[in-house]
Amino acid sequence: MKLYDYFRSSAAYRVRIALNLKGVAPERAFVHLRRGAQRDDDYLAMNPQGLVPSLVTDAGDVLTQSLAIVEWLDETHPKPPLLPPDAAGRARVRALALAIACDIHPLNNLRVLNYLTGTLGATDAQKNGWYRYWCDVGLEALEIQLSREAATGAFCHGEMPTIADICLVPQLANARRVDLDLAPYPMLLRIEAACMAVPAFADAAPSKQPDAE
Amino acid sequence: MKLYDYFRSSAAYRVRIALNLKGVAPERAFVHLRRGAQRDDDYLAMNPQGLVPSLVTDAGDVLTQSLAIVEWLDETHPKPPLLPPDAAGRARVRALALAIACDIHPLNNLRVLNYLTGTLGATDAQKNGWYRYWCDVGLEALEIQLSREAATGAFCHGEMPTIADICLVPQLANARRVDLDLAPYPMLLRIEAACMAVPAFADAAPSKQPDAE
Repeated sequence: MKLYDYFRSSAAYRVRIALNLKGVAPERAFVHLRRGAQRDDDYLAMNPQGLVPSLVTDAGDVLTQSLAIVEWLDETHPKPPLLPPDAAGRARVRALALAIACDIHPLNNLRVLNYLTGTLGATDAQKNGWYRYWCDVGLEALEIQLSREAATGAFCHGEMPTIADICLVPQLANARRVDLDLAPYPMLLRIEAACMAVPAFADAAPSKQPDAE
Repeated sequence: MKLYDYFRSSAAYRVRIALNLKGVAPERAFVHLRRGAQRDDDYLAMNPQGLVPSLVTDAGDVLTQSLAIVEWLDETHPKPPLLPPDAAGRARVRALALAIACDIHPLNNLRVLNYLTGTLGATDAQKNGWYRYWCDVGLEALEIQLSREAATGAFCHGEMPTIADICLVPQLANARRVDLDLAPYPMLLRIEAACMAVPAFADAAPSKQPDAE
């Protein structure tokens, strides 16, 4: 198994957490997004989207999209489970994960920020305002939902990490990189602290990766 | 079961297709996004994200996020399956779906377009350029992947509709709304035509909904 990774990609960070939780340590290659290595012919031949992460399985299948990779890991390496056993619980966890993966993270992606400052001529202040705005909109809704639902436990769903936590922790790391004030999100911070006490999360942090700068 | 829907929401369109494929016809309520009904207190009390769709189950659970709803439907109403039986196939289908749901659709959302023209002062031409740019980037990668992979059949994956087709058809409808030239995507158009020959897809189209304008 081989992971195509980049320390600062929050999508890759999700997969690193999931691999650590499952106790799976693939070979790794590093795709330097800021230098555009994801647009190299070799990488595009493998992953036409030109995004990280990609995971090449032992059978030679190239898996893309972090949440698809995490679901695959959960199906092929069932312990510990990253989704609850009941359909309603699974729907809740997936919805929390997608609220981050679809409604916050895509707007904060490097390629999107580059379009704002390049093609649209946005200033750095406008770019950072955009970044913080979409983080706040998304995190505020998550804070409300997690605060009022009884299914929330030490983690987003009960007492064990799930795919929701795997998405939350990298998103909060992103928010800190643009100095977003996280004080309005005490529930998210409490869950993040519970996650970071788990070595699988702490060891997946960008600063601990071999390609960290 | 009750679906909170809006004819022009492509996320709701996905869920309508899935419900039709499963032969499930929930009660429906319509949330007028262009009039801001998703920000009404009653709706936010149910769905703090203020997005559509929401699906309230017979058990009273409020499900959000279209792909989480579709996975829940597939788990609770297994026939016909919307994912292939093998883990690698499931990963491929989910990745195709997420390449649309995470990497194209969020950038074309009404609220994002409103931020561009409102807060950032983008012109209509710049807004439409943005919309077309992200559609093209995403659809081009899908066209390449679907064209070269043997797992592609009459539909995105083999000979039966999956979650990937459920995401593709609404995204192509969105692309047409901004007059995107779809000629560079013959594979996507061929798959779309196969889908639209299935009543479950055709009946879910925005123009056929009770709230269509």
